[in-house]
Amino acid sequence: MTEKYPSQLLQDAVEAISSLPGVGSRSALRLALHLLGQPKENVHHFTQAINRLADEVHYCRECMMISDSDRCSICSDGKRDHRTICVVESVRDVMSVENTGQFRGVYHVLGGIISPINGIGPSDLTIRQLVERVSALSAEEGAPQVEVILALSGDVEGETTSFYIYRQLGSLPVKVSALARGLGFGDDLEYADSLTLGRSIVNRQIFKP
Amino acid sequence: MTEKYPSQLLQDAVEAISSLPGVGSRSALRLALHLLGQPKENVHHFTQAINRLADEVHYCRECMMISDSDRCSICSDGKRDHRTICVVESVRDVMSVENTGQFRGVYHVLGGIISPINGIGPSDLTIRQLVERVSALSAEEGAPQVEVILALSGDVEGETTSFYIYRQLGSLPVKVSALARGLGFGDDLEYADSLTLGRSIVNRQIFKP
Repeated sequence: MTEKYPSQLLQDAVEAISSLPGVGSRSALRLALHLLGQPKENVHHFTQAINRLADEVHYCRECMMISDSDRCSICSDGKRDHRTICVVESVRDVMSVENTGQFRGVYHVLGGIISPINGIGPSDLTIRQLVERVSALSAEEGAPQVEVILALSGDVEGETTSFYIYRQLGSLPVKVSALARGLGFGDDLEYADSLTLGRSIVNRQIFKP
Repeated sequence: MTEKYPSQLLQDAVEAISSLPGVGSRSALRLALHLLGQPKENVHHFTQAINRLADEVHYCRECMMISDSDRCSICSDGKRDHRTICVVESVRDVMSVENTGQFRGVYHVLGGIISPINGIGPSDLTIRQLVERVSALSAEEGAPQVEVILALSGDVEGETTSFYIYRQLGSLPVKVSALARGLGFGDDLEYADSLTLGRSIVNRQIFKP
């Protein structure tokens, strides 16, 4: 359907909103008209929150998680086990694992997953930083062994990425584990219920003791 | 689910986005992270389109439709019948009727519908402007009769609003009509609700008198 919009401003707004994933032009029109029905201050508050997110967000220098400062609240938390590193694809996955309340270690956000079809290779992710981080930790004298938990999706790309990281960590004296697959093959972390996901953290499989 | 966000900026953006109708906190998070993954220019373009809509949009002084100027493209169109006024609830309804390509008259946008439950009374709508507009048109000497088509929803609120407008126009020498109600084009009798089917029988079209 090629809509004819009564206003160029409306059309521009609808096109901007429908550029969001999963938002069609009909929903975008509904949202644009909703915003138009709001007081201007509300609309400005809305756009300001989004602009500030884009302009001011930081990434934690340790785990690459988004954060309000250079070091995220999890990495700054002395009560967490900084030698157990849960490797995840995205910020959303950190939030999913945190929601289970089952994990007291820290994270490493890859920022994606190895996907040749989407042109994403290892160098587009934070794998190098992970290896450096693990390498530095495992070089500390007299400290407990480092464990890397590969908490990636169970699909081919996730498995490929896990295997790639496993190989990269190969020479380091670290324990490497992966989420227990109580989840169905191909399930995303994002959509897993937190009980199942929590079990998967607790019952992680040991790949290399 | 009370999510714990890793960043106040992210939380603010998610809260802003989830204030949109039909967008839950999970979708809002997905959208916020999508925006975060975009180049800043794209995000600014997105928010600017929305800000401009809120700040710069005009309403047509004749039909109350949103417009880029004080008079919308439909009201400015000399080829349209300015004495046949289709009364609709919203901008979306104008677009729906325009998409049919069947209507060559003009519109009047009420900006809502009478709904005591939502605290919307006649004075919150553009009914007064409609009556003034129709009154001025029907006072023109020697011009054809004005027709007001009530194109409102078929629910109680729509019927109430239609009836209220019908009463307000009562003393003016204008024709008042309403959208035909009946089965949709191509609908099966079998699956039609009995209220609609009943209306279709009562208001049947006469092919041969």
